[in-house]
Amino acid sequence: MTHAEPYLLTPGPLTTAVSTKAAMQRDWGSWDADFRAMTAQLRRMLLDIAGDVHGDYDCVPLQGSGSYCVEAMLGSFVPRDGHALVLANGAYGKRIATTLRYLGRRHTVHDTGDYLPPRAADVERLLLAQRDITHVVVVHCETSSGILNPLEEIAAVTARHGRRLLIDSMSAFGAVPLDVRTLPCDAFVSSANKCIEGVPGFGFVIAKQEVLRAAKGVSHSLALDVHDQWETMNRTGQWRFTPPTHAVAAFIEALRLHALEGGQPGRLARYTRNRDVLVAGMRALGFEPLLTEQWRSPIIVTFFSPADPAFDFTRFYERMKAQGFIIYPGKLTDVESFRIGCIGALDADVMRGVVAACADALKALGVRHAAPAAADAGARAALDTSLADSSGTPPATSLAA
Amino acid sequence: MTHAEPYLLTPGPLTTAVSTKAAMQRDWGSWDADFRAMTAQLRRMLLDIAGDVHGDYDCVPLQGSGSYCVEAMLGSFVPRDGHALVLANGAYGKRIATTLRYLGRRHTVHDTGDYLPPRAADVERLLLAQRDITHVVVVHCETSSGILNPLEEIAAVTARHGRRLLIDSMSAFGAVPLDVRTLPCDAFVSSANKCIEGVPGFGFVIAKQEVLRAAKGVSHSLALDVHDQWETMNRTGQWRFTPPTHAVAAFIEALRLHALEGGQPGRLARYTRNRDVLVAGMRALGFEPLLTEQWRSPIIVTFFSPADPAFDFTRFYERMKAQGFIIYPGKLTDVESFRIGCIGALDADVMRGVVAACADALKALGVRHAAPAAADAGARAALDTSLADSSGTPPATSLAA
Repeated sequence: MTHAEPYLLTPGPLTTAVSTKAAMQRDWGSWDADFRAMTAQLRRMLLDIAGDVHGDYDCVPLQGSGSYCVEAMLGSFVPRDGHALVLANGAYGKRIATTLRYLGRRHTVHDTGDYLPPRAADVERLLLAQRDITHVVVVHCETSSGILNPLEEIAAVTARHGRRLLIDSMSAFGAVPLDVRTLPCDAFVSSANKCIEGVPGFGFVIAKQEVLRAAKGVSHSLALDVHDQWETMNRTGQWRFTPPTHAVAAFIEALRLHALEGGQPGRLARYTRNRDVLVAGMRALGFEPLLTEQWRSPIIVTFFSPADPAFDFTRFYERMKAQGFIIYPGKLTDVESFRIGCIGALDADVMRGVVAACADALKALGVRHAAPAAADAGARAALDTSLADSSGTPPATSLAA
Repeated sequence: MTHAEPYLLTPGPLTTAVSTKAAMQRDWGSWDADFRAMTAQLRRMLLDIAGDVHGDYDCVPLQGSGSYCVEAMLGSFVPRDGHALVLANGAYGKRIATTLRYLGRRHTVHDTGDYLPPRAADVERLLLAQRDITHVVVVHCETSSGILNPLEEIAAVTARHGRRLLIDSMSAFGAVPLDVRTLPCDAFVSSANKCIEGVPGFGFVIAKQEVLRAAKGVSHSLALDVHDQWETMNRTGQWRFTPPTHAVAAFIEALRLHALEGGQPGRLARYTRNRDVLVAGMRALGFEPLLTEQWRSPIIVTFFSPADPAFDFTRFYERMKAQGFIIYPGKLTDVESFRIGCIGALDADVMRGVVAACADALKALGVRHAAPAAADAGARAALDTSLADSSGTPPATSLAA
């Protein structure tokens, strides 16, 4: 990375290591034994990170973005007569419902809004009420708000009721614990350009071998047929269609760096520190995080926009960019907010730089204090209280085809 | 490219220019204005190469491999009550039929085998016999054999009978002429890592604006919904899901080099010379191309395997690789054969090196002459004769759901 290149505070694509990008300075023949060995290596290393010591699971890389992998997982593993319960609290949960609508799979959406996680008690109630639900689908870290959903309790209640769990762990896997030895699930997906810190171009599905076997003939799509990709890859060592060879080479280097850092625990420690430095610094400027501490992920943090009328997001964004920091241009929540990512080849020093750049941008805009509108902070405070009751606001549940 | 890095004689992924790979040494924020400008630029430059001077068409880049784009085109543009006539003469034509089977679209396959192109007279006969055929789907250059199908006559007969044409121009666009001003078609697809000489990671659909508008709600897949990608991209300047940012940056540089070389005509001239040097040199060693000259593309050439029992393809492949040339490991035709590509950052000197390496490999294997089995050559000669009659062997035509 040259000095002139801005840091990306956007969780995928993100800032990658110099050596990760350097690994793309070569062309690979995708049918050649050397590349087949790289594919085998990345599959094995991902299964290791997932804790698959018994060989119950397999890893199927798939060309395209992470959302392609989510669609591939849903289309391949939810049978045509299945019924999926989608736990949504942001754009990515809603996208899962949209995908199921495309696929013509029956689904029920349990939407807890921008601030709240799905809870085991609610899931249990829904599973008891609708006996024909076959699958529960949950987003591990919903980057719309940065909420870290309580995967363990969702997995436990799903298993207790004999249903199957599918996880979108796009922005979490590799940093947030997800170990198939302790977390019962049929499958999960993630992407090259998230916590492993590769470049975008492919994602991967990690699924039980028995689930992969049962997926034969289920998919709505040739390109997104996880069974067909898996079967071909195991038989020939090759991807069915042209793989993003340079992104794969970069990913091998990214996996090496991931292991060097101490694997998932090491990465989590750095991201957590990044988040803590960021939140403390932003709070000192008057900014307030959208989420209560309990649910705040180490992946990305959403801050309320300042109530001060001098705050203009477009100007704020440009001023941040001019100082070398690219944040997400826009919000995915209902309230006025913006997001800053904590993942990628960034450390606490970079996060201190982000905070200093925010301070400079506020000054340039003439914003005297970054405190949110009282109504916004109040809405969250009310939710905090209701959460403390452990019941939560009754969330919207809707049924679709 | 370092001296130690082998040349890829495989058409996609292929050997790219040093500066194309160097463009990947930076991370881009996919939501940022700079990247949106890159996306707009590549769309405009591709439409220019396609000859869209009147703005009748639009270009929709799509994450994934080229086959994803083929599926996206079929799923978005062939309506659910449509009926596609698939002109197949190799693996990629067959893959189109497989895709339509996944999509549940009615289709008829006209298979002319490994040696022969589809001809206008046969297509006309089929269109007259099956009045409910709505679309004709053709592969521009079928890389299974390297055959260059007669796109102009297929397009003319399709238009004359009021049907719609969809083209898989994966390995041809950018080098072989495909100009929408003179070639009537609804849409065609190609990929970043073919004749434009980018790296793999995405492809693109170029389609009539009216066809794109009519595609709303047709697709079987969210990820592969061309209309949705198009509508979002035109509205926001962004890809719907995370794009392969580094592959896009490489493609911008590849497009610059393409223009510098004189665009499509310049590229065609170099590839044609590559092919001619290759074929002349291989013939001097006794090798014989599978296809008659009339149908031989400048993209990839298939040679019959030598009849000499000392010829062992695996050893031949390894010997070529040891000399710095990676060819396709395996055949896609019925007869014993192998393929050598002519596209990528290669010139006549490289092709002379390929021929010299083949000579060395034959010597190492103890093959005294590379002539094919008389039966193979005879089969092709018989086809040449029947082609001269301009009738052709009656090809297999099958109907599927």
